[in-house]
Amino acid sequence: MSSKNNDIQFFRNEVKKFIEERNWTKYHNPKNLIQAMGIEVSELSELFLFKDYSIDEIMENKILFEDIENEIADIFIYLISFINILNMDLTKAFMKKMEMNRAKYSTKEFNDGSYYKK
Amino acid sequence: MSSKNNDIQFFRNEVKKFIEERNWTKYHNPKNLIQAMGIEVSELSELFLFKDYSIDEIMENKILFEDIENEIADIFIYLISFINILNMDLTKAFMKKMEMNRAKYSTKEFNDGSYYKK
Amino acid sequence: MSSKNNDIQFFRNEVKKFIEERNWTKYHNPKNLIQAMGIEVSELSELFLFKDYSIDEIMENKILFEDIENEIADIFIYLISFINILNMDLTKAFMKKMEMNRAKYSTKEFNDGSYYKK
Amino acid sequence: MSSKNNDIQFFRNEVKKFIEERNWTKYHNPKNLIQAMGIEVSELSELFLFKDYSIDEIMENKILFEDIENEIADIFIYLISFINILNMDLTKAFMKKMEMNRAKYSTKEFNDGSYYKK
Repeated sequence: MSSKNNDIQFFRNEVKKFIEERNWTKYHNPKNLIQAMGIEVSELSELFLFKDYSIDEIMENKILFEDIENEIADIFIYLISFINILNMDLTKAFMKKMEMNRAKYSTKEFNDGSYYKK
Repeated sequence: MSSKNNDIQFFRNEVKKFIEERNWTKYHNPKNLIQAMGIEVSELSELFLFKDYSIDEIMENKILFEDIENEIADIFIYLISFINILNMDLTKAFMKKMEMNRAKYSTKEFNDGSYYKK
Repeated sequence: MSSKNNDIQFFRNEVKKFIEERNWTKYHNPKNLIQAMGIEVSELSELFLFKDYSIDEIMENKILFEDIENEIADIFIYLISFINILNMDLTKAFMKKMEMNRAKYSTKEFNDGSYYKK
Repeated sequence: MSSKNNDIQFFRNEVKKFIEERNWTKYHNPKNLIQAMGIEVSELSELFLFKDYSIDEIMENKILFEDIENEIADIFIYLISFINILNMDLTKAFMKKMEMNRAKYSTKEFNDGSYYKK
């Protein structure tokens, strides 16, 4: 295994292998994985509850940064598990949604930093 | 742009460009992006509320499958936005967490389909 | 029915009747109700995404205030449904938890506006 | 204080006093309280992740039941905190929403156990 691999297929293979080796496919239905994803987003959220970290403060705080990395990894692992069981093409889904977003929020109307149409 | 690109850097560039062109970086602080991620997970969850779809039913239902693709893309786009603002290495975070998971759930103890240690 | 009733038992009876009249008890298992509660909290959250309302702004904005009321009611209705199916005593649960909170966050240590122990 | 009190005003007073005694009102803005509510719903959700408890199993499992009580109390305490800062009338919000629900899901159309209109 390369020490650096950014490809979605790489993530999918790693997660698939991990799940199969533990005989956990039976837990991996869509509802369970969405529930798990939501729980991990909440654990990430909890790191910021009643806190007001600037981006600099986060990047200089090694422990906090690692906690955030771990929660982001958890969310991502469940997201990858989810597309694995549905054999969903993440790149295709991403590009289609970006295209929809570009059409909905045209740079002509949304170039002044406002978020919603006037 | 290639019609098929699976690389995390590709997703990061696409999202960064989209945000900058709309002057939306000011909305993209960690708390807002986590909040948005949670909302998108909930919208995905809502597609399954009070429903019991099998994986086959999902894959044969074109409209449902596309709805799910759109929500997964939304979650993923916010996740990519989040690692963009913290310049987080998703591959590194993923591999570190997978290593932790392999240590915590050894295949020796977790090979019989149970989820928790006895 | 009194036009003003604040008692938990009143809420429980109202929700129970509503569910039974529609023959919906079969949907009301713990996992579904928790999932639904989470979705409603997210809908409330969405009213505040990328927004910075002061409390005064909320109270003066009749439409926003009613939207918030509706989401709070939805969360509360699912919470009441949940305690209904488990026949849980909300007052007892509340008082026990408040007692735990008072012990964990003593006013001696937590009287200066800090949230976490030094 | 009565050992048994089911009135919303009672809960509101108890929570208000607890927050004021610790000088925590500054943390209690709408966004923070919604975030906290979401985290507590997730902690409740986590008790059920990859599990399939029947209602009987929950009611006979004293430790699980108390864990659930504590999470429900946490959700409820944040909900009460939220209506406290906006001085929202929970009974009014509840009755208005129930009225809307009765209109939307008439017993004429929703009496056969289906959840959505045909």
